Amino acid sequence: MRILITNDDGIHAPGLLSLRKALAPLGEVVAIAPERPRSACGHAITLHKPLRVAAVKMADGGEGFASNGTPVDCVALGTSNHLGGPPEVVVSGINLGPNLGVDMIYSGTVAAAMEAAICGLPSFAISVASYQADDFGPAAEFAALLAGELLKGRLPQGAFLNVNVPDLPKAQIAGVAFTRQGPLRYDNRIERRTDPRGGHYYWLTGERVNHDDGPGSDVDAISRHMVSVTPVQLDLTSETVLEKLRDWPLHWPGR
Amino acid sequence: MRILITNDDGIHAPGLLSLRKALAPLGEVVAIAPERPRSACGHAITLHKPLRVAAVKMADGGEGFASNGTPVDCVALGTSNHLGGPPEVVVSGINLGPNLGVDMIYSGTVAAAMEAAICGLPSFAISVASYQADDFGPAAEFAALLAGELLKGRLPQGAFLNVNVPDLPKAQIAGVAFTRQGPLRYDNRIERRTDPRGGHYYWLTGERVNHDDGPGSDVDAISRHMVSVTPVQLDLTSETVLEKLRDWPLHWPGR
Repeated sequence: MRILITNDDGIHAPGLLSLRKALAPLGEVVAIAPERPRSACGHAITLHKPLRVAAVKMADGGEGFASNGTPVDCVALGTSNHLGGPPEVVVSGINLGPNLGVDMIYSGTVAAAMEAAICGLPSFAISVASYQADDFGPAAEFAALLAGELLKGRLPQGAFLNVNVPDLPKAQIAGVAFTRQGPLRYDNRIERRTDPRGGHYYWLTGERVNHDDGPGSDVDAISRHMVSVTPVQLDLTSETVLEKLRDWPLHWPGR
Repeated sequence: MRILITNDDGIHAPGLLSLRKALAPLGEVVAIAPERPRSACGHAITLHKPLRVAAVKMADGGEGFASNGTPVDCVALGTSNHLGGPPEVVVSGINLGPNLGVDMIYSGTVAAAMEAAICGLPSFAISVASYQADDFGPAAEFAALLAGELLKGRLPQGAFLNVNVPDLPKAQIAGVAFTRQGPLRYDNRIERRTDPRGGHYYWLTGERVNHDDGPGSDVDAISRHMVSVTPVQLDLTSETVLEKLRDWPLHWPGR
């Protein structure tokens, strides 16, 4: 069994090391990740410049591959025949910080798992739900359990999993919840500042606003100290709006 | 009425100019777009460096705003109170080249419309389905028709539209189809080359493979010379996999 791991925090991120260690008993684990942190890069791919891949020694002494590309590029590289061909499973993470609600759409970690699903490979993204986390142990243990299930072929094509693990000792984690993408989003996202020459510049920032968070969401699970497992699909079509569109007066170009 | 327009081909792209001209009769059109082409940047946002916005003269003599950010950053900037507050509608395009099937996931054009939807604003992305297109006229005319419907408040929250227009004279366009995201994806995406010093580098490339393309898809509509309008939702949860997950043996960390 061959397992490809990647992330958006870069090849030297501690979460990637913990993941590799935890998955090692399941098969050959190949790490290919960005050479530098690429958080919030979404599903970006690199079309306008060549990609490079360099073998690097990781902090645990093992070999990994660093690329100048995005996390999605890393999945494209790592599943190509030039780097050993498609693996049986792809795992992205362990991300430092939550990927809940709409964060899922910005996340490079989640995009890497989505890319694997586009390639027809079982995959999941996994994050520790705190930016201050220093113990990836519980998340790594759960990643190994879940990867084992994916290796059994349990996950249907066209979907992947987005996993968030509370930043708590294992004994304090209350179980596993199967969840929906929550309604978390951001308000007041642009902060304006003035530079020493009087020009304006802007920072992307924002307050997390958790609109109408009912039970069953990813955010709700984490607040109840549970591991959140959200199944995500590649088909983004809105069935409800598709029904309504038939009534729109879009008779064009007309006869 | 205030309409924000953006794209991923950059502030000086002809498709943006055609869009502005076509939408002008509907209200005040504000253009804010990347200062350089940012195709295939997905839902990337800029968190690690400040954003800049510069007023620029567009090719039609009008004023626009160029940013060093991504298309999604441009929507965040253009909907903030620093640049006039939220518009009534956001339109992204007109993209040079199709955004069909899985291309939707890589596209900066589509991501900008998605970002507007996340902000609660009615929006659509619009593309001409050919990289060789030189006439944006038919797509621009359809954009104005559709923007008029969105200004009437027809589109529910939590969704946006992805529009592809055939690269044909208006008289040859066969009508409007309401479609689903097709199964288009890429194979053999990595090409390896050798540099003058013997090192390897890689290009992201790939053959379009249109798996199991039944009627009703975006790809199918374009092949029948119809405008394709696909409603896209922000909730990516897979209902079918969510049902199945309940049977997985993920009892962790145990009791």
